[in-house]
Amino acid sequence: MPPRTPIPVIKMDPKKAPWEQEKKPHNRWHPDIPPVAEMKTGDLFRVETIDWTGGQIKDDDSAEDIKHVDLTRCHYLSGPIRITDEKGEPARPGDLLAVELCNLGPLPGDEWGYTGTFDRDNGGGFLTDHFPEATKAIWYFDGIYASSRHIPGVRFAGLIHPGLIGTAPSHELLKIWNEREGALVQAGENSTTLGGVLHTRPLALLPEPKGALLGDIPSDSAEWAKVAGEAARTIPGRENGGNCDIKNLSRGCKVYFPVFVEGANLSMGDMHFSQGDGEVSFCGAIEMSGFLEIKCEIIRGGMEQYLTPMGPTKLHVHPIFEIGPLEPRYSEWLVFEGISVDESGKQHYLDATIAYKRAVLNCIDYLSKFGYTKQQIYLLLSCCPCEGRISGIVDVPNAVATLAIPIAIFDQDIRPKAGGPPVGPRLITRGDVAKSKYDGSKPLTINQCMCGGGH
Amino acid sequence: MPPRTPIPVIKMDPKKAPWEQEKKPHNRWHPDIPPVAEMKTGDLFRVETIDWTGGQIKDDDSAEDIKHVDLTRCHYLSGPIRITDEKGEPARPGDLLAVELCNLGPLPGDEWGYTGTFDRDNGGGFLTDHFPEATKAIWYFDGIYASSRHIPGVRFAGLIHPGLIGTAPSHELLKIWNEREGALVQAGENSTTLGGVLHTRPLALLPEPKGALLGDIPSDSAEWAKVAGEAARTIPGRENGGNCDIKNLSRGCKVYFPVFVEGANLSMGDMHFSQGDGEVSFCGAIEMSGFLEIKCEIIRGGMEQYLTPMGPTKLHVHPIFEIGPLEPRYSEWLVFEGISVDESGKQHYLDATIAYKRAVLNCIDYLSKFGYTKQQIYLLLSCCPCEGRISGIVDVPNAVATLAIPIAIFDQDIRPKAGGPPVGPRLITRGDVAKSKYDGSKPLTINQCMCGGGH
Amino acid sequence: MPPRTPIPVIKMDPKKAPWEQEKKPHNRWHPDIPPVAEMKTGDLFRVETIDWTGGQIKDDDSAEDIKHVDLTRCHYLSGPIRITDEKGEPARPGDLLAVELCNLGPLPGDEWGYTGTFDRDNGGGFLTDHFPEATKAIWYFDGIYASSRHIPGVRFAGLIHPGLIGTAPSHELLKIWNEREGALVQAGENSTTLGGVLHTRPLALLPEPKGALLGDIPSDSAEWAKVAGEAARTIPGRENGGNCDIKNLSRGCKVYFPVFVEGANLSMGDMHFSQGDGEVSFCGAIEMSGFLEIKCEIIRGGMEQYLTPMGPTKLHVHPIFEIGPLEPRYSEWLVFEGISVDESGKQHYLDATIAYKRAVLNCIDYLSKFGYTKQQIYLLLSCCPCEGRISGIVDVPNAVATLAIPIAIFDQDIRPKAGGPPVGPRLITRGDVAKSKYDGSKPLTINQCMCGGGH
Amino acid sequence: MPPRTPIPVIKMDPKKAPWEQEKKPHNRWHPDIPPVAEMKTGDLFRVETIDWTGGQIKDDDSAEDIKHVDLTRCHYLSGPIRITDEKGEPARPGDLLAVELCNLGPLPGDEWGYTGTFDRDNGGGFLTDHFPEATKAIWYFDGIYASSRHIPGVRFAGLIHPGLIGTAPSHELLKIWNEREGALVQAGENSTTLGGVLHTRPLALLPEPKGALLGDIPSDSAEWAKVAGEAARTIPGRENGGNCDIKNLSRGCKVYFPVFVEGANLSMGDMHFSQGDGEVSFCGAIEMSGFLEIKCEIIRGGMEQYLTPMGPTKLHVHPIFEIGPLEPRYSEWLVFEGISVDESGKQHYLDATIAYKRAVLNCIDYLSKFGYTKQQIYLLLSCCPCEGRISGIVDVPNAVATLAIPIAIFDQDIRPKAGGPPVGPRLITRGDVAKSKYDGSKPLTINQCMCGGGH
Repeated sequence: MPPRTPIPVIKMDPKKAPWEQEKKPHNRWHPDIPPVAEMKTGDLFRVETIDWTGGQIKDDDSAEDIKHVDLTRCHYLSGPIRITDEKGEPARPGDLLAVELCNLGPLPGDEWGYTGTFDRDNGGGFLTDHFPEATKAIWYFDGIYASSRHIPGVRFAGLIHPGLIGTAPSHELLKIWNEREGALVQAGENSTTLGGVLHTRPLALLPEPKGALLGDIPSDSAEWAKVAGEAARTIPGRENGGNCDIKNLSRGCKVYFPVFVEGANLSMGDMHFSQGDGEVSFCGAIEMSGFLEIKCEIIRGGMEQYLTPMGPTKLHVHPIFEIGPLEPRYSEWLVFEGISVDESGKQHYLDATIAYKRAVLNCIDYLSKFGYTKQQIYLLLSCCPCEGRISGIVDVPNAVATLAIPIAIFDQDIRPKAGGPPVGPRLITRGDVAKSKYDGSKPLTINQCMCGGGH
Repeated sequence: MPPRTPIPVIKMDPKKAPWEQEKKPHNRWHPDIPPVAEMKTGDLFRVETIDWTGGQIKDDDSAEDIKHVDLTRCHYLSGPIRITDEKGEPARPGDLLAVELCNLGPLPGDEWGYTGTFDRDNGGGFLTDHFPEATKAIWYFDGIYASSRHIPGVRFAGLIHPGLIGTAPSHELLKIWNEREGALVQAGENSTTLGGVLHTRPLALLPEPKGALLGDIPSDSAEWAKVAGEAARTIPGRENGGNCDIKNLSRGCKVYFPVFVEGANLSMGDMHFSQGDGEVSFCGAIEMSGFLEIKCEIIRGGMEQYLTPMGPTKLHVHPIFEIGPLEPRYSEWLVFEGISVDESGKQHYLDATIAYKRAVLNCIDYLSKFGYTKQQIYLLLSCCPCEGRISGIVDVPNAVATLAIPIAIFDQDIRPKAGGPPVGPRLITRGDVAKSKYDGSKPLTINQCMCGGGH
Repeated sequence: MPPRTPIPVIKMDPKKAPWEQEKKPHNRWHPDIPPVAEMKTGDLFRVETIDWTGGQIKDDDSAEDIKHVDLTRCHYLSGPIRITDEKGEPARPGDLLAVELCNLGPLPGDEWGYTGTFDRDNGGGFLTDHFPEATKAIWYFDGIYASSRHIPGVRFAGLIHPGLIGTAPSHELLKIWNEREGALVQAGENSTTLGGVLHTRPLALLPEPKGALLGDIPSDSAEWAKVAGEAARTIPGRENGGNCDIKNLSRGCKVYFPVFVEGANLSMGDMHFSQGDGEVSFCGAIEMSGFLEIKCEIIRGGMEQYLTPMGPTKLHVHPIFEIGPLEPRYSEWLVFEGISVDESGKQHYLDATIAYKRAVLNCIDYLSKFGYTKQQIYLLLSCCPCEGRISGIVDVPNAVATLAIPIAIFDQDIRPKAGGPPVGPRLITRGDVAKSKYDGSKPLTINQCMCGGGH
Repeated sequence: MPPRTPIPVIKMDPKKAPWEQEKKPHNRWHPDIPPVAEMKTGDLFRVETIDWTGGQIKDDDSAEDIKHVDLTRCHYLSGPIRITDEKGEPARPGDLLAVELCNLGPLPGDEWGYTGTFDRDNGGGFLTDHFPEATKAIWYFDGIYASSRHIPGVRFAGLIHPGLIGTAPSHELLKIWNEREGALVQAGENSTTLGGVLHTRPLALLPEPKGALLGDIPSDSAEWAKVAGEAARTIPGRENGGNCDIKNLSRGCKVYFPVFVEGANLSMGDMHFSQGDGEVSFCGAIEMSGFLEIKCEIIRGGMEQYLTPMGPTKLHVHPIFEIGPLEPRYSEWLVFEGISVDESGKQHYLDATIAYKRAVLNCIDYLSKFGYTKQQIYLLLSCCPCEGRISGIVDVPNAVATLAIPIAIFDQDIRPKAGGPPVGPRLITRGDVAKSKYDGSKPLTINQCMCGGGH
């Protein structure tokens, strides 16, 4: 009867480069990336992860590292881990893999994180047409709380979660991904309504050998070239989970993943100390290195029993998430609304993305009346425990999206009051985030009714 | 020092037609609809409302009334109420009107509600291409709880709220609405990505004299013809609030409305006993008659102090909502995910609407394995306290939307388990909602990987 | 299929005296008080109640009515209501009666309440040796919120509940009550540790014909004299429920009562808008008239199946309470501690009552540094949603009791801070409660380490 | 700008005896125990602790270790830690020391805990007259959850907290403690009401050199003999905090301690994975080794500014606790009631301790109908997140205490239902805790109305 200390399966040293780690991570999805470990159902095991950029971002007061980040080298995932049952029989395609997140935290000795927005010509963010420059805020942790010297006057409890966690795709699923995303790029920006409104972000990121790290596959092998040439990028969430960015996926939660390859080949990374719904700034949660202590269970045949495919193949399914009983309780919220009318006043049809963009813009402008810069609020909304809701999706022509922010995270009362927002000595300004000027030439979305100021 | 009994300002008799009420409601937005009452700031007053269809839907087991509902006659709003300060000075354009919702409930003697989906050729719903037929479920209330003979085995606490509440638009704002919505209809369905995916719902509902009720304006007057010809329909949420469908807007909440006309001219209606985020079935909350007890405060100049317009004019603003400390606490949730890939497998670009449609479809298919019909779940997701979240909005090309449903509202454990969903004697089926066959000819979205069955 | 409007079973007019009501209430417990109504299981029915003093207390700024209250005339209960199953078979001794509280509220037209402390020579309160004078605060309601002109700067959401609800005792149970309470009075104050510390409150209130109201039993009958002479007073909670003062017993809760007489004979009254754990001031919640909408279920034989008697007879049992999902969420609390050492410094043995007294005293002194009088805080702790906990009950010789108060109910930050509590212009004083001088001669408990001031 | 990794101040090795640790802990309170470390305000530092018995209890299936535990050797505290401000000026008597609990957890490599009841002749517990034998349950942790092979079918999220934390007493305060507790022992059991009801537990534990560990004071020195002879035992909570057993004192909380000696001399230990209010079984929480990461702040003069002494001296004060926003959310509770009538049917006067004893007994008997032994429930109520409330403390002669238990921690529905508790194949029995027979001769409290069985 030994105590239930988690088995240390994958260790990471945040001071080393990704390719120098003992068990090399991977930053692409591919069925042929070999497992680095094998665990049985019921084992409680510990996986360490490096931050999503693999150490490209520093704890300093300059945003130059964010501006010049190499996004072909991101989302370093620890794993894959092959999962078997207690008799050693592996998880098989058609099973469900239930993964319980027992404990999560920052890596000891590396307890800090960052939030940023990318330069418009290098990744951008949800509001890149309003805020084209790279910015950065550094966060320190006091146990459950995060605070930042770049956004003073705000403190909140984090809900630590993995930004990415998923099972490996099969060859067939990988092919589906590459084809459908390729078709989108092929069709071009004009083919989408949103391309026009969110303009100039990449439509999709197709397979790209540059920057690929494929675990133990030697980078000078033919195997490497083949896998790197067809492996899927990690940016979007897909059928295998991946970058689902569910902010409440923290201690005590459980995810039911479809299994596409023998052994399930579970990988995870991109740990977040806290995130707002939508992760709007893109480099957007409080990004950090970290650890997960997890347990797996195999539900034999569960993928077919529980998941109904929706699409041309049996692989068009999604994981299911079970949220546990522990999260910060906030009792009072201020809620900002957006409808599917864009910044030029143009009416769109039931478009929740545009509605959410308007809600986020409304919230930024409102909160910036309390002594913050708009860039501070933009980063804050990306990483604090705010909730993005689809409130109405049927009332033609307007989708209504809302953004709710907990009032208690501020050190001042941010409610509207007779007399207006603080002015004069009542207004305390609060410095700014680190910024790095945008040198590109893409046009800004100008708020037409503002004279002079605004974004 | 009189006790603070709410002042009964507007009474409604749910047994009478809308036009027979003592203080006639209105079902269009227009600045020239005259106030039916005047209240001062600080007054606690009571407003009664009829249900949103004005009594077209009955407590029975047929969906024929839903199928043939007249949607030009909907959203009967009580009001407008002119608001002044304690000295009698009215709210003025540029002010904020803070409205506190002190108490809400069903109308005594009329404690029941309904949820439905409209026929595809008469309004439809979010999933009308999957579920084209009209359906209906009736709900009874035991205090805070709702239950339905048409969806047995489910019970949940409601968060009573007004589906519609807002201030009157000015002539200038009304013109903006009519122009932008007219332009959308003009451009036609092919102009929108979503028209293709949500196909065959109306793009927008433009001004329509038929069915209009304009409070005290006599229906045979020239005034009536003019107002009815230009008054905005009530379906979408807009700058004045309106159909914002925020499910948590219940007892103890406060809304800060922009004021566009002298007196603010506050109206409200479409009471919901409970609603899920998105209100997906369109006739979608638990719709009922009801009452509100409210208090108003005027923040002079607050619209300009607190709301930053985003768009071509100073009127492009939105209300702000303050959510209070009281709501049903649920501790465990099952979360379904969708990404912006449509049912044919086609990749869309960061489209939260499509992602949410997939999440809802995934949830319906999953829960229907537990003895419910898909139509029962579709209605349930529209009215139970489920949360629709925009989880990831930056990870090109996929938006990730999630739908979280509280586990405790079911009388069985709906989590995935070894052994699969209940079969044989363990599976309890639960009847069905009332249905009325779709006679139209529009095509169904077929789930390609299902053979025979499915929706 | 009629709508589920609650059946109005008992109506009360708060402007009339208790004995003038159509269905006269009762203010004693006795099996021979005849039912005033009969309801079936499954019926949703509405019971109105007058306030616990039967209208003796007024909405004014004097505490004279509190000082001279007649406590032989209190706890007017609506009922008894005889409960049968759907076939008309009554609840029987040995059954459990499950009572669901579907809805509760103040009586329309009478929406106000009061909190008081009684004069030391006429009832007193938990701290009567510190605060011997009668005091009063009046509360008005804005929907879920209460506020008082006598305790400005505080506002909180109420959890409306019945202070008293219970089934009728049998003759055998009544005899047990009278004997054990009589024996306590007989033994005298010196027989109890607590008599010394809580000194000079009555030990128990024995049967007393004066002031008795016994429903429909004519007051000049022999029956009346017999029943009034042996009926139990309503002050304490006992085996039948009664004055259990459980502050969370609000909408959506359920109580499982033992049934001692045929028909169960359910009675209820003493409605509270809100109460703190312990109801320390005795007249202590926000007392009001009100209504309950309830439903009953009979669990045949359930008393014997579920309740284990603990004592000399099978009647020594207690009800069980099921708390529902709806209550005000407060996220931050300040917690005050007390141990079982009394104000003179004397050590007592594991005495939770003394520990709680110390916790309450500590909290009063602390909060009075923020501009309130001690009497204001004493009343506040009696009626706001504060939690009284038995934190440690085994660590000899000290019991540890704690009192937790939600920080958000104050309009200032009441946490300790560098610089100390507010002084000078930062200190806002806030008037006082109504007071009525104590004319008696009983000694005050003096806080020995305070010079001059204090209580 | 180094990352904020906690400074490791005190390390403990759970495999070593207390006196073998590098920085020896102490198990008595005395001002002359020298600090083992010094920290500045603002430092985030990590303190490790051994379990409260210093390793006497093993992870096995026998309760012999509990039966023969040496209670003179318990409550090993890590510290004292001397606290200074950033300039090196120490905390001084009259200050408040604000201690923020940033993070807490089990010691890595030692993730398990135990709950027990002591033998009646060696410590006992709250119900020792009902349950005189020693018992033990072992708990393992899956992240936030605890489960036990000795109490299967139950799982709950823990709120990790220190059972003991406090500042050192001054000589003057120590003298007060020893005198008042000595006087209680002197007066004898007959002097207390509760001695009769809780009979045969020790009244108080007076200074006892046997088993004392005094940090770095050499055990053969004259200093040791003097200090050990007058140092206070650690069992009860007192003015300095100490064994306050506040179950919610977890991550994100803050305690404001009075400072009695220069440097404050903060000590802590007795880590609990989870505890129920009251910690009724005495060895009662889930006891474990663990770590705390904390930060201190000094509020100069705060003790005099914020704490009003209540008693003969200025030292009669108590700490204040601030509870944070993070705890397991449970939505449904079953609540058991007790009144101040003891098991023999005797009426006591407003005695919350007796009322709570009855509530605990009622709950044990009720839950034991669902397949558990009474001993399993007794241990469970001591360590699961149940709430013990003082519901009514003024309704003579009965105090009403309640015990609320979250329904969701059980794997079956424990609510009363028509048909009664499970019988036959529906009843799943669940083994038992480890037990060790009581050999003593003290009498059991017999439940008089039970024939044969019961406790």
